[in-house]
Amino acid sequence: MDSVLIAPEAVAEAHERLQPHIHHTPLLNSSLLDRWLGHHLLFKAESFQKVGAFKLRGALNAMIAAKEQGALPDQVVAFSSGNHAQAVAYAAQYLGIKAKIFMPRFVSAVKQQATRGYGAEVVLTDTRQQAEAAVAEAVAAGAHLVHPYDDETVIAGQGTACFEALNDLQAELPDAVFAACGGGGLLSGSWLATQYLAPEVKVIGAEPALANDAHQSLEKGQIVRLPDTPKTIADGARTLAIAPRTFAHLKQLSGFYEAEEKEIIYWTQWLTHMLKTPVEPTCAVAMVAAVKWLKEQHAPKRVVVILSGGNLDAAARQAIWQNDYLTIRPSLTPII
Amino acid sequence: MDSVLIAPEAVAEAHERLQPHIHHTPLLNSSLLDRWLGHHLLFKAESFQKVGAFKLRGALNAMIAAKEQGALPDQVVAFSSGNHAQAVAYAAQYLGIKAKIFMPRFVSAVKQQATRGYGAEVVLTDTRQQAEAAVAEAVAAGAHLVHPYDDETVIAGQGTACFEALNDLQAELPDAVFAACGGGGLLSGSWLATQYLAPEVKVIGAEPALANDAHQSLEKGQIVRLPDTPKTIADGARTLAIAPRTFAHLKQLSGFYEAEEKEIIYWTQWLTHMLKTPVEPTCAVAMVAAVKWLKEQHAPKRVVVILSGGNLDAAARQAIWQNDYLTIRPSLTPII
Repeated sequence: MDSVLIAPEAVAEAHERLQPHIHHTPLLNSSLLDRWLGHHLLFKAESFQKVGAFKLRGALNAMIAAKEQGALPDQVVAFSSGNHAQAVAYAAQYLGIKAKIFMPRFVSAVKQQATRGYGAEVVLTDTRQQAEAAVAEAVAAGAHLVHPYDDETVIAGQGTACFEALNDLQAELPDAVFAACGGGGLLSGSWLATQYLAPEVKVIGAEPALANDAHQSLEKGQIVRLPDTPKTIADGARTLAIAPRTFAHLKQLSGFYEAEEKEIIYWTQWLTHMLKTPVEPTCAVAMVAAVKWLKEQHAPKRVVVILSGGNLDAAARQAIWQNDYLTIRPSLTPII
Repeated sequence: MDSVLIAPEAVAEAHERLQPHIHHTPLLNSSLLDRWLGHHLLFKAESFQKVGAFKLRGALNAMIAAKEQGALPDQVVAFSSGNHAQAVAYAAQYLGIKAKIFMPRFVSAVKQQATRGYGAEVVLTDTRQQAEAAVAEAVAAGAHLVHPYDDETVIAGQGTACFEALNDLQAELPDAVFAACGGGGLLSGSWLATQYLAPEVKVIGAEPALANDAHQSLEKGQIVRLPDTPKTIADGARTLAIAPRTFAHLKQLSGFYEAEEKEIIYWTQWLTHMLKTPVEPTCAVAMVAAVKWLKEQHAPKRVVVILSGGNLDAAARQAIWQNDYLTIRPSLTPII
């Protein structure tokens, strides 16, 4: 194994560490959907995690791990246009320290409000690049950064979602676990979880075709950075580039798929409709990969799809429900 | 008491009868919402009931009660543009008999599909009135009708949602329970549940201002029938008129409020956002009443709002998310 790879034990430790502080989220399923697709699908519903997304796992693991080593500062900084912002804000408030979050100005009022609601100071910047620059400056001045993915404890924390699912399914392990790729933390952690608990379980990644930097990186063998924020509806996958650390883990995956915007919206509608759960478009990116992989299988499979979160603002909901795809019944090849 | 009133024991019996067959739905809350409103609100989430709505309780109670008396026919008929259709279809399939459901043609494809999905035969009519007429004809020819509200066992079944909530809250009873009014079955049953378990708990009803036939009936002392299907977004409250049986029970309520369309959409957005639960606009009608009642109180209260269901088609979601009300923070007097 590549020496950059994190020890799989880190996920087991994160699981131990986090258990008293977070929700054990449920695995949902729909027997009707299973019948339509001819496979058994289980959905790890991180929309029911605190702050409504898996992101709390990484942020809280990083901060509690630092505290255990007497290294928790009295303030953390982070940049995020989405769930990581709320996760760091919640974790800081939970541990009684301050958080300063840099967010691009285009972020919806409700997301800013939620982050402030957890007691964080929100600093708006004009662009994503400016937010990244402002954070780099703060870090250079000594601030403690909670990185959204390029960090061992964050990656290990994100891996606990998959770890929980595999634990719950010990009696009958899934064939594969699917997750979407933003910075690659969730996928890296998920792969580590399988290495610790069940190396025979495949981990398969997915990106919007409009934000395919990780897929391009995997194909070219070097990290490709997008020039500007991609226009995909899957806001959790708009990251400009993965990090060398996550890249090393993504290379270990058993597959990687791209999802078209129409496919993302189609499955966002159907999963919302069938699971009666809030489903962010980023969740549907993983579902698209699952459907494409299942289509290639010759026998019924059992898979876990990680639903990364359920935070949606009004604009996202409008965009999702602009066309009615509920008239087109799910299959492994829906005509949309 | 009026002799038309159903014996409160009927709800306790329905609770016993239904328990093995349905979900005990959770009571949700949001501590942030409580802080904003200055009261404690609990939400009975019938979106998690089978078929995604409380309607299953009434339909299944009616049909199992008939079976107990050896009077279950081999086919039932019903008319509905919404959740009652799916409830009767599910209950019939569950009990191994046939169901024929009359639906107005304007009902969305996804609702027709769901009803057919439970094995029912769906017959489309041009209007709601035609559907009612077709059913009357079928009944005259001997068919067994499962009425959406004008039936003792249906009303008793609907009352089990409130019965469950009061049971769960025995240690600290709520001051009031709020529910929306379509045909009045849910409110009638809820009032009966309080009479059996805790007569000191108020039951308060609500209707869209655009579909205020029950409120008008209560004010005039006689049943008022709407000339045509009202254009409210709260499709569970579009019933043209209540029945003498439900009217008798509605007269016992501790209050009745009307909700404007804007208020309904505002609270549909916020409850969806804060509870991470699918919320039909009809649920928000009850919430509007709760907010109006709470505003009149001089001390913090504890209330239950029955969220009647979570089935939404694409058109409804588009209509709900057309304007962004998440920018206006909840209070007892939100300026919308």
